[in-house]
Amino acid sequence: VELVQAVRWSDDGTSVRIIDQRHLPERVVERDLQSVDDVCEAITTLSVRGAPAIGVAGAMGLVASLARHAGEPRDRFASIAAAHAARIRGARPTAVNLPRAIDRMLGVIHAASTGDSVTLLQRLRDEASAILDEDRAMCRRIGENGQALIPDGARVLTHCNAGALATAGIGTALAPVYLAALEGRRIEVFTGETRPLLQGSRLTAWELSRAGIPVTVVSDSAVAGLMHRGVIDLCIVGADRIAASGDVANKVGTYPLAIGARYHDLPFYVAAPMTTFDPVTSSGEYIDIEERSADEVRCGFGRATAPREARILNPAFDVTPAKLVTAFISDRGVHRPPYDFAEGGDWRVEGEAVRRTPTVRPPTSTLGS
Amino acid sequence: VELVQAVRWSDDGTSVRIIDQRHLPERVVERDLQSVDDVCEAITTLSVRGAPAIGVAGAMGLVASLARHAGEPRDRFASIAAAHAARIRGARPTAVNLPRAIDRMLGVIHAASTGDSVTLLQRLRDEASAILDEDRAMCRRIGENGQALIPDGARVLTHCNAGALATAGIGTALAPVYLAALEGRRIEVFTGETRPLLQGSRLTAWELSRAGIPVTVVSDSAVAGLMHRGVIDLCIVGADRIAASGDVANKVGTYPLAIGARYHDLPFYVAAPMTTFDPVTSSGEYIDIEERSADEVRCGFGRATAPREARILNPAFDVTPAKLVTAFISDRGVHRPPYDFAEGGDWRVEGEAVRRTPTVRPPTSTLGS
Repeated sequence: VELVQAVRWSDDGTSVRIIDQRHLPERVVERDLQSVDDVCEAITTLSVRGAPAIGVAGAMGLVASLARHAGEPRDRFASIAAAHAARIRGARPTAVNLPRAIDRMLGVIHAASTGDSVTLLQRLRDEASAILDEDRAMCRRIGENGQALIPDGARVLTHCNAGALATAGIGTALAPVYLAALEGRRIEVFTGETRPLLQGSRLTAWELSRAGIPVTVVSDSAVAGLMHRGVIDLCIVGADRIAASGDVANKVGTYPLAIGARYHDLPFYVAAPMTTFDPVTSSGEYIDIEERSADEVRCGFGRATAPREARILNPAFDVTPAKLVTAFISDRGVHRPPYDFAEGGDWRVEGEAVRRTPTVRPPTSTLGS
Repeated sequence: VELVQAVRWSDDGTSVRIIDQRHLPERVVERDLQSVDDVCEAITTLSVRGAPAIGVAGAMGLVASLARHAGEPRDRFASIAAAHAARIRGARPTAVNLPRAIDRMLGVIHAASTGDSVTLLQRLRDEASAILDEDRAMCRRIGENGQALIPDGARVLTHCNAGALATAGIGTALAPVYLAALEGRRIEVFTGETRPLLQGSRLTAWELSRAGIPVTVVSDSAVAGLMHRGVIDLCIVGADRIAASGDVANKVGTYPLAIGARYHDLPFYVAAPMTTFDPVTSSGEYIDIEERSADEVRCGFGRATAPREARILNPAFDVTPAKLVTAFISDRGVHRPPYDFAEGGDWRVEGEAVRRTPTVRPPTSTLGS
């Protein structure tokens, strides 16, 4: 399977090369991000999107934005870096990966007590490259851990895009699908189109078709009817943030799918790296849900699709309670209830003995890992 | 409340004047239907839509299409009428109102053993006008029967458009809303946009805004999140066909709302005239679900929103099982379970003793009432 590379270094290594996802599936447009404005704008407009990908692009983008400041005195360089980091960190609020990646970069700045700004920039570049490489490895491990859950002939429902386009690797929710297909199993994928921005129909259908995996698109409202007709065997979605309780923030529309899966007695899996688990957010009600522009609903396709007088609400995410999740598929393994993803909590992972994470609690004001 | 008139006779009485709903909310375009091609095309393309409205428009359109044949010999006129009726009857398969209205018109042709084609045309015109008037009266009775279910301050969720634009009168699902608002109660309405054709955002939001009732539009996938946040008090939707079991065919997306309402313990009402109840269809699994063009999903807004390689499924309706319906609001009353809407079955109506409809069974091959 030849998969697309959503985020990488440009050929000369000075900028972040992304596929501008706003143009898919009509055109494949690559774009190089260099300034902090570029990076923030690309994240805000969803040119680059997907919780893992924006973490990677944010860290790499920070490096790119600092390249032209490498001659500055070290202290001044560090303060510019901190300012850029703060802007990038705030570009989107819901996914935990972006602040985590940026906090790792800030950790490099704070830890490096010696060396000039050129040396520091190199350390930052190494850290961003490490985040990129870890993301690719993480995707593959999620795929390896999850692929056994997808039998031959499985008809898999997903939502939005948690595939190669959402990560630097082979995706999160789609990683088990790709590896099961590589094993020779016949897999068919269904996706709701994922209004308002249609990541299901525009992105997931595009990358799966490109990889030769049959994919069917329906409007989001038609998914429950497919479940009723027995057309779906299991569901796998990604996640933007998972609270200590196991409550999952993911693309709006995930929650009704989880309710539908429960109603039709279908497995509902959430695939995400450990970096998406947020031990300091105790439950879903504390997750900040991004409200995006009303225009995405009011005239998302260049035509007026709602009258001016109508109020629009456009939450980008919703929260699925842990009790509706059959299991989590992470880069660590398959986690089944009861969940306790709090720092210091029990981690029940299939194939491992129950293990305990270090009991050192981070300061509650940061998400650093 | 000054409501829009979706279907009526043109000023000279020779054609059917509709609001072409494809242009809303951008423009209010009226259109006169005269030929059988006009009528079928208007129904197929959803220029006129809504189960009651297409019944009315079909009957009136049959008359309009026959006007230029009024000089023909009676037998020839009757056979032209039967041919036109068959075409109009088949324009859309799911709603029961269209075949019922056409069958009433055919009944007039069969019953009239005397008179020339001019006389017959007049009888058909009278019958179509009666169907129009009955539809308006039916809407008002649904409103009167249902308005007590909508308390002051209620936040009402609806789906698609079952309002004035879907009938010749004040709507079905929205009729109780309009009458409750007329009583001075403060009502707020929420609607999913209703992909793929956006009848919620384009039509329901437009007619409610025009009537001064506050309305909020969200993407269909965001409705469950609203329910979770406690923003919705009750749901009212329309219906295209209701089986004897009480299973409801309605716009795709109704079923997941009903599942969501049950999960969040919210009342879920279905408002429809008795003409939408189909005693000869025993349960939902026997309802023919219209599959509409893939292009509505693939490039519904003039842009490619899914890759060519992806398969599209685009069912226009889904079936909500009777067990998820809190009550039906009809022009006869409020019906609560246990339901038995079969011909000859028990009819439990609030405020009336249980009554029994005539036990004469129609031939099972027709839907005639």
